[in-house]
Amino acid sequence: MPTPRTTLQRHPERGSHDRAVIDAILDEALVAHVGFSQDGQTFVLPMSFARAGDRLYVHGAAASRALASLRSGAPACVTVTLLDGLVLARSAFRHSVNYRSVVILGVARAVEGRDAKREALVAIVEHMVPGRSADVRAPTDAEVDATAVVWLPLDEASAKVRSGPPVDLEADLSRPGWAGEIPLRLAPGAPVAERRVAPATPVPERVARYRRGR
Amino acid sequence: MPTPRTTLQRHPERGSHDRAVIDAILDEALVAHVGFSQDGQTFVLPMSFARAGDRLYVHGAAASRALASLRSGAPACVTVTLLDGLVLARSAFRHSVNYRSVVILGVARAVEGRDAKREALVAIVEHMVPGRSADVRAPTDAEVDATAVVWLPLDEASAKVRSGPPVDLEADLSRPGWAGEIPLRLAPGAPVAERRVAPATPVPERVARYRRGR
Repeated sequence: MPTPRTTLQRHPERGSHDRAVIDAILDEALVAHVGFSQDGQTFVLPMSFARAGDRLYVHGAAASRALASLRSGAPACVTVTLLDGLVLARSAFRHSVNYRSVVILGVARAVEGRDAKREALVAIVEHMVPGRSADVRAPTDAEVDATAVVWLPLDEASAKVRSGPPVDLEADLSRPGWAGEIPLRLAPGAPVAERRVAPATPVPERVARYRRGR
Repeated sequence: MPTPRTTLQRHPERGSHDRAVIDAILDEALVAHVGFSQDGQTFVLPMSFARAGDRLYVHGAAASRALASLRSGAPACVTVTLLDGLVLARSAFRHSVNYRSVVILGVARAVEGRDAKREALVAIVEHMVPGRSADVRAPTDAEVDATAVVWLPLDEASAKVRSGPPVDLEADLSRPGWAGEIPLRLAPGAPVAERRVAPATPVPERVARYRRGR
C-alpha cells in the first residue's frame, strides 16, 4: 500500500508496491538489514529472516539488545537488497548499480508463545534452504525460550528495482571505449561437510544443488 | 576504537576493532546499508559507497531526502555485510550464516567544495571497478553540483565475522544426516555491452576479468 513515506522521491519509475515483486525479492534474499533507534542513535544490523504470508520474521537471542529495542514499539525499518550488477557508463557520473530492494517500515512486535515462535524459527531455516527443517532436529522448548522472534507487517513495504544498461548522455555516446553491465549473482560453492559427518553420508540434493534466485 | 556502543554483547569472540579487518570488508563490499532517523522513523537505504583513508563516503542526488537527513547531524549508522555461506547444523536452532560485517556509528558530514566532492565521486567509481575512472569522462561542475556526498569517520567502526562449520550440541553429533557449510560468493557473469558500443571495442581487462574478494 503506497503511503507518503513509501512513495519514492528519487527515480519513482523504479518503484513498486506490487506484493508479487516485493515477495519475490524477500524470498530470494538471505540477509535483512534491520534498522532501529535507541537513545537517539540509529543502528543497522544484518539478520537472518523469513517471510511468511504478510509477515516478515527476524530472530535473535532472547537477551539481545537489538531485539529488545525492536520490540520497544519504535518505528523500525527492515531493508533487503539483492545486487544484480554493476552499470558502467561512459561518464563517471552515470555509473550505477543494478539491484532489487525492499524497504519495510513498521512497528516490530514480539512473536509470543512457543508454538508461534517455533513456527517462525522453522520458517527461517526453510527460507535459508527449502526442505532443510525435515532433515534436522526440531527446536526444543529450551531453545525456543532462548530465542526472541519479532515480526513486521508488510503493509508499508515498497520495492525499488534498477536493471538494464547504463543511460549515458547523448553527447557521450560518441566517446570511444566500452560501456555496459557486469552482471553479478550469489554463487554457491561445493558444500563442505562438518568433520564429524560419517564419510558415507550423502549430501542432500537440496544442498548439493543449492541455488538462489534466477 | 572500541566504545561501549561498539562492544559486542552477543558473540563477542566474533568482534574486531582491527582497522585492517574493517578496511578489508569495506573495500570488498559493493553496497552499504545507510540508517538514519527522520521525525522518529528509522530508515535504512542501500547506497554505493567508498572508503578513502579514515572516511566512508556515500553519495546521492543533491535533492535527496535521505542525504538531507544524513547531513542533519543526527547519529547515523552505516552497515556493510558480506555473505560468505550458509551454516547447516544438525539442529534447526544451530543453523547460522557465515558473514563479515562492519557497523559504523557516527555523525555524517557533507563533503563541501567541488574538488573534494569530485574526488569522492571518483573514489566511488574506483571502489566499484578499480581503474575505471581513467576510462570514462570525469564529472563536470554541473554533475558535481547535482550530487550530494556525505562522509562518516571510521573511529567508531567495528567488524563482526562468523566463519567455519556449524557448532552442534554434543548430543546431536550422533544424528545421521549431513551437516556443513554451503559457501557463497558474489560471482560476476560475462560483461554485457551497451548496444551502441562500437562492435570492435575491446572489453577492458578490468571488466573482462572483474572479480571481487577472495
